[in-house]
Amino acid sequence: MATPASFPPRTTTAEVELGTLLQPKFGPDGLIPCITVDLATNEVLMFAYMNAESLDYTIRNRRAAFWSRSRNRLWIKGEQSGHALNVVGLYVDCDQDVILLKVENLGPGACHNGYRSCFYRKLVAEADPEGPKALKLEFAATRAFDPATVYKK
Amino acid sequence: MATPASFPPRTTTAEVELGTLLQPKFGPDGLIPCITVDLATNEVLMFAYMNAESLDYTIRNRRAAFWSRSRNRLWIKGEQSGHALNVVGLYVDCDQDVILLKVENLGPGACHNGYRSCFYRKLVAEADPEGPKALKLEFAATRAFDPATVYKK
Repeated sequence: MATPASFPPRTTTAEVELGTLLQPKFGPDGLIPCITVDLATNEVLMFAYMNAESLDYTIRNRRAAFWSRSRNRLWIKGEQSGHALNVVGLYVDCDQDVILLKVENLGPGACHNGYRSCFYRKLVAEADPEGPKALKLEFAATRAFDPATVYKK
Repeated sequence: MATPASFPPRTTTAEVELGTLLQPKFGPDGLIPCITVDLATNEVLMFAYMNAESLDYTIRNRRAAFWSRSRNRLWIKGEQSGHALNVVGLYVDCDQDVILLKVENLGPGACHNGYRSCFYRKLVAEADPEGPKALKLEFAATRAFDPATVYKK
């Protein structure tokens, strides 16, 4: 395991937004949001958080790693399912407080519910007369694998 | 302006993850992360946060609205630049704590720095021997508009 990663302190807005030094901003909880997209299709596969250690791991190993807030530990994507994500490109947004990974998905899907993408449901287009209390979703994807087989324990 | 939006309370994990009722999870700060992608190319354009009011506004008006954390107010994208985002599809992730918008970008770019996407910089592929303290970015896009002209004030 890498030693705790030390990213540089943030400097000026101009340097952060238009410079060429990685100066990621971690929130008060030590985390930075990360969007993961499929290299081939640009489809958003998942969204998770990284701490400095998982960002460092991802950069060093070119394999997506996050911070699991529910398990409170480093989460190397695919460690249980085998559905690892090979990182081909790592991007930052303008103010360097969001990471974007372009990945090759080594498994059939990135979602623990068996879908390629976690974003498998879409709001039904027709406005609901009952308002926000009863907005309906529809499934916009079919399952790519059976989670009961992949996540056994 | 709409009255404060009231989304339904969250129920069981099964209902949240595999059901068909929109039950968004707002964090302790009242916000939910939102990824915005271009309808035509799937390119991630930007990332911002919504509160219940901005999510409700977005759904009702099919126009992207967020919560500006810096200005502490509703932020209708394009209100100053004219670069509004027409929402064609709204998706949620598996545990309904992230929103994804598919949009038509009515302007040349979504980023206040003049780029189509906020993710205009990419980590240089070669690992830096100095480690995380000195990781270099390179520009992966060219400017789509001049921010000095668009943001005049």
